[in-house]
Amino acid sequence: IESKLPATGVSIFTEMSQLANQYNAINLSQGFPEFDTPGPLKDYLKSYVQQGLNQYAPSIGMPQLLEQIRSLIEYHYAAQVSTSSITVTSGATEALWVAIQTLVRAGDEVIVFDPAYDSYEPAINLAGGSCIHIPLTKKDYSIDWQVVESRITQHTRAIIINSPHNPTGTLLSTDDLQQLTRLANKYDFYVISDEVYEFITFDQHQHESVLKYPDLFKRSFVVSSFGKTFHATGWKLGYCVAPEALSDEFRKIHQYVTFSSFTPAQLAVASMLENEPQHVLGLKSFYQQKRDLLVESLQGSRFQILPCLGTYFLLVDYSELSELSDKDFCYWLTKTVKVAAIPLSPFCENQSGSKIIRLCFAKNNDTIKEAAHRLCQLS
Amino acid sequence: IESKLPATGVSIFTEMSQLANQYNAINLSQGFPEFDTPGPLKDYLKSYVQQGLNQYAPSIGMPQLLEQIRSLIEYHYAAQVSTSSITVTSGATEALWVAIQTLVRAGDEVIVFDPAYDSYEPAINLAGGSCIHIPLTKKDYSIDWQVVESRITQHTRAIIINSPHNPTGTLLSTDDLQQLTRLANKYDFYVISDEVYEFITFDQHQHESVLKYPDLFKRSFVVSSFGKTFHATGWKLGYCVAPEALSDEFRKIHQYVTFSSFTPAQLAVASMLENEPQHVLGLKSFYQQKRDLLVESLQGSRFQILPCLGTYFLLVDYSELSELSDKDFCYWLTKTVKVAAIPLSPFCENQSGSKIIRLCFAKNNDTIKEAAHRLCQLS
Ligand SMILES: CSCCC(=O)C(=O)O
Ligand SMILES: CSCCC(=O)C(=O)O
Repeated sequence: IESKLPATGVSIFTEMSQLANQYNAINLSQGFPEFDTPGPLKDYLKSYVQQGLNQYAPSIGMPQLLEQIRSLIEYHYAAQVSTSSITVTSGATEALWVAIQTLVRAGDEVIVFDPAYDSYEPAINLAGGSCIHIPLTKKDYSIDWQVVESRITQHTRAIIINSPHNPTGTLLSTDDLQQLTRLANKYDFYVISDEVYEFITFDQHQHESVLKYPDLFKRSFVVSSFGKTFHATGWKLGYCVAPEALSDEFRKIHQYVTFSSFTPAQLAVASMLENEPQHVLGLKSFYQQKRDLLVESLQGSRFQILPCLGTYFLLVDYSELSELSDKDFCYWLTKTVKVAAIPLSPFCENQSGSKIIRLCFAKNNDTIKEAAHRLCQLS
Repeated sequence: IESKLPATGVSIFTEMSQLANQYNAINLSQGFPEFDTPGPLKDYLKSYVQQGLNQYAPSIGMPQLLEQIRSLIEYHYAAQVSTSSITVTSGATEALWVAIQTLVRAGDEVIVFDPAYDSYEPAINLAGGSCIHIPLTKKDYSIDWQVVESRITQHTRAIIINSPHNPTGTLLSTDDLQQLTRLANKYDFYVISDEVYEFITFDQHQHESVLKYPDLFKRSFVVSSFGKTFHATGWKLGYCVAPEALSDEFRKIHQYVTFSSFTPAQLAVASMLENEPQHVLGLKSFYQQKRDLLVESLQGSRFQILPCLGTYFLLVDYSELSELSDKDFCYWLTKTVKVAAIPLSPFCENQSGSKIIRLCFAKNNDTIKEAAHRLCQLS
């Protein structure tokens, strides 16, 4: 059979996690926590399963969860959205997929910023669109809005942003969102905002959610997830927030992609959000300690550490250590040093030749120390 | 925003379940069990959650579950498939969606048989294809293969079959699958086989899985689900079996649609399949008792009962009772008689004017009796 995605293989996350397992390496590649989801959340889940709430949820999501998401948004972003604007999905991946299918028609162009999460382009292509890659600036992985404006055409249907940014750990600023608002309104395109690390920011930096910018939100799909927030990446529970007219179209497609998501997890997360708000509030300091530990433990190494303002990923430059390409270096590191990491080139249209890899620090402190110890041996 | 699915509204299942709740009616519309998933399955799930197996599963599925599906197929269909042919999905809905995205390109035609499950056509349209509707015969909802052959064109990319058939309760025979094999090989198209009710057949009738027909399987995606088998429609766990070359393409797309499914449920179903095989074996008699109870309890009514050889749905003809269209009749029934059912016209391109509705009997015996009692009052 001829492939609908001829340029695509198995995702880099699958590839590197498999390699990590094969070589028994510490897995700092694929982004998932080494520690468990909170006890109360597990207890809620077990209790809803036991109570027999095991049949289809409504396709749009359980009402309890929709209400808690509404209230989370009100609390954190002082934004009023109605539950008619919210749809629960099977992870942020499904939300991104459905938002793209909702927007993109044959011939449309969608702008993404490299390095870009690997699911955007295949989803755009399968919808019949093409992906316009604009690299983030070399200096500090920011967006050059003049370049963006120069790449907008009459086919530009949407721009996908991602903040806190995976893999660079950067944040979009108020100014960025204002520039985007200006362009989106001037050229009449839509925005998909991937905010799955919304609660993981450091050093007093604020996440600027699109939800805080009404003139931008009115043409946006905002995607988030509970996987990162509740250390439960295997629960595959995400959501999309969009103005009602956009949500209506999103929901039409969602109902034919997965119909609904695991019912007891929806109820458990709703109970957790309602009864344990301190968990979400504690995430910043929880992960800041881990980021600081990794940064500190790498001080003696020959890796150059890049700034990390959010997410649970740290970029490090290995150019003092090796001439290998980033993917080859990640293979070598996994096999030889027994630390698995993610190369950046799979997230870029043009392999820039940069010698930078991504380390996940959603790990126990001992794991972080041991991985850093191994990386410090390299000379 | 202009709609990518202009002809589509909210799914009929959502519409009727909402109406049933609103009017406090017995809900025999959307197909989900009233009874709970088995105790051992709940215990497994709770135990895996408690053990902390809450992070991403591999995108293709947990190895334990892939192995149990392989062995289930070997046991029930005497078919040898490798785990490389199996992909776990977030429900059969996702499996159907991904199989269609894998196959269908702009301009392709896909043949479906009316009444057809409501997710097929939107998925085909969003992939850029068009849906060719062939009605099942008026006589007994069978497929007229001569008509099928006459509708095949150079654009025919796939045929979607569904057996046991929702909503008609019919089964495809060996002869049907042989005819299909002949046509598929002659005209070189693919087959998507929706077999989610595979273990629910009655009166010694056998389900003829495409997995038993190697010459057909070699160009097929076989879709099933654990929702129906384990009374756990809210767990959203399904799978797709296809030859390796097709599975490779399926997996590429699946990884960008949902990436993976709820990890603890995958492990729990694997343990259940391994340790409690009697559950699956007992499904036929469990549901046959319910079908018989509903049929018997409706004997005094003015509904004409159609044959039901599989699934947990029974069709009944209300033409002696009302001149209303099937959808209007379902609304009236829900509001007035307080029994919700599903009309067939939403599953057909041409509203045939037939006066037939679908009743779900995956309900407790008391519910079945009470619903039948209400339906028997009508005159
Ligand atoms: C869906 S697996 C990828 C997890 C992740 O978001 C990452 O590692 O960047
Ligand atoms: C996904 S909701 C529909 C359930 C079902 O399969 C049916 O009622 O036919």
